[in-house]
Amino acid sequence: MSRDIEDVLAANQSFYDAFAARDMEAMARLWSSSAEIACVHPGWDALDGREAVLTSWRDILAHPGGPRIRCANARAYVMGEAAFVVCHEILGQGMLVATNGFVREAGGWRMVHHHAGAMAPVAETPPGRLH
Amino acid sequence: MSRDIEDVLAANQSFYDAFAARDMEAMARLWSSSAEIACVHPGWDALDGREAVLTSWRDILAHPGGPRIRCANARAYVMGEAAFVVCHEILGQGMLVATNGFVREAGGWRMVHHHAGAMAPVAETPPGRLH
Repeated sequence: MSRDIEDVLAANQSFYDAFAARDMEAMARLWSSSAEIACVHPGWDALDGREAVLTSWRDILAHPGGPRIRCANARAYVMGEAAFVVCHEILGQGMLVATNGFVREAGGWRMVHHHAGAMAPVAETPPGRLH
Repeated sequence: MSRDIEDVLAANQSFYDAFAARDMEAMARLWSSSAEIACVHPGWDALDGREAVLTSWRDILAHPGGPRIRCANARAYVMGEAAFVVCHEILGQGMLVATNGFVREAGGWRMVHHHAGAMAPVAETPPGRLH
């Protein structure tokens, strides 16, 4: 595994660690403050820009009944100074699929995007049924 | 609008044009053949690698009852040689949110990732209900 892939996977895990710990300061540091950022929470419309994205995380992390999520099966795709990770998010009985985008900055890999959505059991989604 | 953003949005539109035209040759050309690629169709598990991704598109585009999708509200985020677009996918009554990843190659911007999922009406997804 290349060093870049290791580092991107570590940045991805830090995101889930901050999520699990309800650590808003760590969450805010994880996201790029120089690049434009976006976020698509499951079922939500897209959020654009640091203020909207971080406000959404502040609301989510402050919510006492919020989900406890664990990341699994993360796979990193590195393209020079940018990268993305595709992984599963395990929530009790359910599972989501997430895409997390990263950009390389002086301090390391920082998030630029998060997009998570439900994954249906494979038997319910034959090819062609939806795109 | 910067030239890069224009070009990325044009590449994104080409993807939806190929989808609408059921043009598998154009679809295959749009995806990077040098970078690692991935794809998350709505409700599916993630697909990894060119063979799995293009096979899925071949199946979807060959499906006569497949959805007719139109892209709207596309917004591009460029990070040097990589970029992503967040947009809506309009299907008749429904709407999806998509993230499309791109990398800059000699021939222009090529896709490296597609992740689409359902968007629930805003009233059904208050902050904190799901992450």
